Amino acid sequence: MKTASLILLTIIAEDELESRLLVDLKSLGVRGYTICSVRGEGHHGLRASQWEGENIKIEVIVDGVLAETISEHVARSYFPHFAIILYFLPVQVLREEKFTKHEEHP
Amino acid sequence: MKTASLILLTIIAEDELESRLLVDLKSLGVRGYTICSVRGEGHHGLRASQWEGENIKIEVIVDGVLAETISEHVARSYFPHFAIILYFLPVQVLREEKFTKHEEHP
Amino acid sequence: MKTASLILLTIIAEDELESRLLVDLKSLGVRGYTICSVRGEGHHGLRASQWEGENIKIEVIVDGVLAETISEHVARSYFPHFAIILYFLPVQVLREEKFTKHEEHP
Repeated sequence: MKTASLILLTIIAEDELESRLLVDLKSLGVRGYTICSVRGEGHHGLRASQWEGENIKIEVIVDGVLAETISEHVARSYFPHFAIILYFLPVQVLREEKFTKHEEHP
Repeated sequence: MKTASLILLTIIAEDELESRLLVDLKSLGVRGYTICSVRGEGHHGLRASQWEGENIKIEVIVDGVLAETISEHVARSYFPHFAIILYFLPVQVLREEKFTKHEEHP
Repeated sequence: MKTASLILLTIIAEDELESRLLVDLKSLGVRGYTICSVRGEGHHGLRASQWEGENIKIEVIVDGVLAETISEHVARSYFPHFAIILYFLPVQVLREEKFTKHEEHP
């Protein structure tokens, strides 16, 4: 099968940030996402359990340039104020045209 | 720890396809799976938001040959009609014998 | 963006083991986690469907040393008695100091 190398980027945040994050992701060029409700516990600076309870895990598949853009935006706009986690890893995907900005013209 | 290199293959689909996908995966040789309910939004061709709402994320751990077989089957049987997403990435697993076809004989 | 290479380690287990696993993970040095409820089906030895039904997926981000420590602990303490799955893969994370033992001192 022909696959494309893209980036699976994951954001974990408190659920109150969901609509704001989705608006941001779409305006940056994300074309699809999945959200899973998760529970969790994390550390924020020297305080324990800054976020504990209902959180969301947002996953998007993007190219390397968009992954970098999202990372910079989240770091700048959210990290100073919120206990957001962001990580990414390479994935092989089928139907690359679903994730990149320009549709293939059949 | 002794680990084995296998493939974590993820399928995201509308929840109505769950039982059909599971039957297919098992008949292809998958020995275990997890399903998580997710919400999401995606693009299907030129129409926006073809799938939006309740979806499922199916994850299986398989060897490279089975990953290829599953990819080909999903592409052939589902891609023409459904907005399914499929991606995979390498993982290191413990207890390889749980994921491959032939049990180790202790 | 400056990222750090860490390990995303995933444990899938029956939900009754949640509190016990979390106590263990924290005592081993894990500083945060997310838990997602999943359904699933798997194989345990020669018996089919040893775990089927409500399970949990615990995800932690740790360094390579801690990933090895967790793997050894889970293998020794849980594998003989429970149908636990453990796998891991490399990820790039922002804000490394949230996941490693020693906070950065700003």
